[in-house]
Amino acid sequence: MFRQNYSSVLLEKAVDEFSSLPGIGRKSALRLALHLLKQPQENVERFGNSFIALRKGVKYCNVCNMISDENICSVCSDSSRDRSIICVVESIRDVLSIENTGQYRGLYHVLGGIISPMDGVGPGDLPIKELTERVVSGEVKEVILALSTSMEGETTSFYLYKKLSGTGVQITTIARGVGFGDDLEYTDELTLGKSIENRHLFKF
Amino acid sequence: MFRQNYSSVLLEKAVDEFSSLPGIGRKSALRLALHLLKQPQENVERFGNSFIALRKGVKYCNVCNMISDENICSVCSDSSRDRSIICVVESIRDVLSIENTGQYRGLYHVLGGIISPMDGVGPGDLPIKELTERVVSGEVKEVILALSTSMEGETTSFYLYKKLSGTGVQITTIARGVGFGDDLEYTDELTLGKSIENRHLFKF
Repeated sequence: MFRQNYSSVLLEKAVDEFSSLPGIGRKSALRLALHLLKQPQENVERFGNSFIALRKGVKYCNVCNMISDENICSVCSDSSRDRSIICVVESIRDVLSIENTGQYRGLYHVLGGIISPMDGVGPGDLPIKELTERVVSGEVKEVILALSTSMEGETTSFYLYKKLSGTGVQITTIARGVGFGDDLEYTDELTLGKSIENRHLFKF
Repeated sequence: MFRQNYSSVLLEKAVDEFSSLPGIGRKSALRLALHLLKQPQENVERFGNSFIALRKGVKYCNVCNMISDENICSVCSDSSRDRSIICVVESIRDVLSIENTGQYRGLYHVLGGIISPMDGVGPGDLPIKELTERVVSGEVKEVILALSTSMEGETTSFYLYKKLSGTGVQITTIARGVGFGDDLEYTDELTLGKSIENRHLFKF
């Protein structure tokens, strides 16, 4: 790779670090580093230290594996949440997205990955035993599988379905269909087909 | 603004800091913060500290205002550079872009801004006195104005032209025209017009 002379080793190191982030190339990294140069020193210190503090201080919920400042996350420790439903997701970001909707009052279980033999991730690498333990503890009535529709996601969903089907809980999955505001014309055949297959009574 | 609950104050602070950067929204900021969480702690420390070290240790060349680790930058202290030409640019990034071409062996003068009455930047806020002093010192034969063609850039170029025209040095500006590989069809009228006006003998 052609390496530019940045005329300052400090600048070069900062550009190296920014461009190590996903989706940030060396041109953007330079722009960001020069932006920081124009900020007051205390702001730049707060900027740099925030990531170090996050990495050092981060905890994961002992129950659902969600990122948390405590050993039990705010969802799991919230007594107003519906403890009879667990929504299984791949990542922390999925939890944040669902929480954002304000439509879900149950609990979560963050797998932190999906079964992917190509990447060497097997069922044993995911907290599936912990999920089964939560499900058989008695309180749970429904498990929602909210994994992606990729090959790996479907494999994981199927594996979980097999694992949990003996426990007597209801196993559901989120609805797939044409998005609000989307044109039928631009919706892929699979999604459109599923949305017709899974049609339901019109509610107003 | 709607503020998402990130379930961790540390995460929220890191997202705040990332999204304070230009061109990075809260969704990207979250993605970047979660990416850092997956890195080894020492990498994250190196990441955060690189910006603090840059901000604390940065110097600017006493001659041309380019970013530098020393008091005189690597271009100004390079005895093989042509000291009879000074290229005037707006920003550090412009110097890096020109250096990248490998086509220029003269010196630079970084203004760090352009005259912009709307933003309260007058000629007195830019290192124009320093430029004049360099020009009249005797060694300089040519000053290349490589400022933008915006209203403010043209104003600054004109101001510098007026300031320097009495010193006897040759004042030039970079060629504007149709870019290599660009279609005439998609070139704006002003650029295409200038490229015809400023045509030169065909060299092979």
